[in-house]
Amino acid sequence: MGIIIQKFGGSSVANTEKLEQVAQKIIAEKISGNKVIVVVSAQGKTTDRLISEEKEITDNPSRREHDVLVSTGEQITISKLAMLLHQKGYKAVSLTGWQVPIVTNSEFGNSRIRYIHKATILDLLSSDNIVIVAGFQGVDENLNITTLGRGGSDTTAVALAANFEADRCDIYTDVDGVYTADPRFVKNVKRLDKVSYDEMLELASLGAKVLHNRCVEIGKKYNVPIFVKSTFEKNNIGTLISNEKPLEDLVINGVAKDDNISRITIVGLENKIGKTYELFKLLAENNINIDIIVQAFGETFIKNITFTVKMTDLNRTLKILNANKDKLNCKEIIHAENLSKVSIVGVGIANKPGVASKMFEALCEKNINMHMISTSEIKISVLVDIEDAPNAVNTIHEKFFK
Amino acid sequence: MGIIIQKFGGSSVANTEKLEQVAQKIIAEKISGNKVIVVVSAQGKTTDRLISEEKEITDNPSRREHDVLVSTGEQITISKLAMLLHQKGYKAVSLTGWQVPIVTNSEFGNSRIRYIHKATILDLLSSDNIVIVAGFQGVDENLNITTLGRGGSDTTAVALAANFEADRCDIYTDVDGVYTADPRFVKNVKRLDKVSYDEMLELASLGAKVLHNRCVEIGKKYNVPIFVKSTFEKNNIGTLISNEKPLEDLVINGVAKDDNISRITIVGLENKIGKTYELFKLLAENNINIDIIVQAFGETFIKNITFTVKMTDLNRTLKILNANKDKLNCKEIIHAENLSKVSIVGVGIANKPGVASKMFEALCEKNINMHMISTSEIKISVLVDIEDAPNAVNTIHEKFFK
Repeated sequence: MGIIIQKFGGSSVANTEKLEQVAQKIIAEKISGNKVIVVVSAQGKTTDRLISEEKEITDNPSRREHDVLVSTGEQITISKLAMLLHQKGYKAVSLTGWQVPIVTNSEFGNSRIRYIHKATILDLLSSDNIVIVAGFQGVDENLNITTLGRGGSDTTAVALAANFEADRCDIYTDVDGVYTADPRFVKNVKRLDKVSYDEMLELASLGAKVLHNRCVEIGKKYNVPIFVKSTFEKNNIGTLISNEKPLEDLVINGVAKDDNISRITIVGLENKIGKTYELFKLLAENNINIDIIVQAFGETFIKNITFTVKMTDLNRTLKILNANKDKLNCKEIIHAENLSKVSIVGVGIANKPGVASKMFEALCEKNINMHMISTSEIKISVLVDIEDAPNAVNTIHEKFFK
Repeated sequence: MGIIIQKFGGSSVANTEKLEQVAQKIIAEKISGNKVIVVVSAQGKTTDRLISEEKEITDNPSRREHDVLVSTGEQITISKLAMLLHQKGYKAVSLTGWQVPIVTNSEFGNSRIRYIHKATILDLLSSDNIVIVAGFQGVDENLNITTLGRGGSDTTAVALAANFEADRCDIYTDVDGVYTADPRFVKNVKRLDKVSYDEMLELASLGAKVLHNRCVEIGKKYNVPIFVKSTFEKNNIGTLISNEKPLEDLVINGVAKDDNISRITIVGLENKIGKTYELFKLLAENNINIDIIVQAFGETFIKNITFTVKMTDLNRTLKILNANKDKLNCKEIIHAENLSKVSIVGVGIANKPGVASKMFEALCEKNINMHMISTSEIKISVLVDIEDAPNAVNTIHEKFFK
């Protein structure tokens, strides 16, 4: 008799009717003989509502108090779901983050899990209870309520799966798996039966927001099989994320895009040891999140460095760079706005000749200009104008998956 | 530098605008040099909303899960109030029941406080924080969330005042004190400057719902001076509830009514030791709450016992009594419905000749029929028809306070 973790997101628990469907999924797993730990998010727009109420009070809330406020959302869901399971004749007990406890560091709003106590949950499971855990939240060692940040409930679920050596961690969501591209704007997308942790990490970071990176990282570290499934479709098998090797003939697993990117080039940075470090230290100190970095050597003693930041960070970044232009000792700072990053992901791309050229061919056929190219072991990214991005994704997808 | 407890009820914290006024009251107390512990309820109709959502799921919720659900209401208020005080430049930290912790027994939905740990709050106070505690909630020794039942936030406030030997416990509400009668339906009511714990207990139990009995009982036991004040009027002095002796010339302190009472008479109960006990044991075992009991002896070996129960309990009570009629060995069970209890309260009523007759005179003048009379050291109650009750209260109030 194994332990199964089931996680249901906000849209899956949005109202009583949807909670009914969630209860059915839980009961089915219970009936099949498994011990079940359920992780839930706040219902529907609850967290948004709490945050908008918070904004009435202050634009700059204490992060500790913010966590006290928003953690009520999941607490409401766990109690309702437990009641619903009782109503259907099943034993169930809800646990908040501090009741488990899920102990985190004190980084309010973006805490990392330190450890999860097992005794309370094991006791409840052994007395035949379905255990319902509030996602997204924990408690620090001074008994302050903490939250795990974006994708926090997924992280809770996979961390529990790792901790209890669960047979599976099922992430129920409003899509029925991971696709070769975003179905909202790409035609003929295909659901993947399997994807590796690394591919999923690249896909997630590229804007295919099915799962947050942190939960995939934990899954990879502890080798937790993660299934992404739909809450509302019956008998869907979903996508399995695991360390299984991909089939040899599978070249790329997905096409993704990430909008609102800007590109900055530091022209003529002095080619001296420490200069590059100095540049990125400056940006890190100012909390500027850098994505791709490309360095192209030019003349002997100078170099150009190009990197991307989100459009929302562009003005701040330029201001910081220009204020430090003398210190950096560079010739010029130029930038391009309103770009999208379009990427293909697949284990072994680096070893497959012709994958990059096939991607570039697709773009060329549609006259789409590439502003930057960056490659890794399992990914090739290009920057294109934001207006070209949907077309780019579609044409690349068609080229590889037709 | 003393400790002051300030408690603000649901209507006082209903929205951001009202929280602003609450913040002003807190800051005024802080500026005057006191250490301040604030207790708050859930905002406005939050608890009602949660309960109506609960009813969508089940009519018979697990009491443990019910407490998990409703305790979120106060948690929302404490975080918002802390943020608002930060916004105004004050140090403030929120604490849920389990963070204090306020340790209760495990009677979910109606828990009793066992003890309150002082260390966390004392630490926060000594580092100049305003401490904001969630009212109404606690935690049992197995780390389950509990709630204190009706009037729970008042109980939290007075219990904290007792525990920290506070100089005062200020209960802020939407009325500016305790009145000689309910201002909503009695003319020319007067606010009382002072009232004793015992009088307040009688007034509260008689339907003057300014404070719940439990908090007054704790106040009396630990001699906590309780001020009832208005959140929204400036400079109101409110009513002080303490053990101060009343002025000699003050005959009655208030007139109160309690609606929806029914009267049951057990006619011809065998006059044998143990029969009365048997009767009330039966009712207690069935959780029937008895208010007034009056016994009138009749023939030598039988007696009549009359008592009152709430209208909502009437049918259940009659059913239980009739099912046990043979066992009780009584002649008849009769009852009267839709009555109100109208009472006058004042320390020393028993020693003041003419008080009862003055009350009866007032009722007689208006042709109001009395269905039962019961007196104690500090109270005289009569049952009247529910339609007569407002008239009864007004005419009695006029007689004593004109």
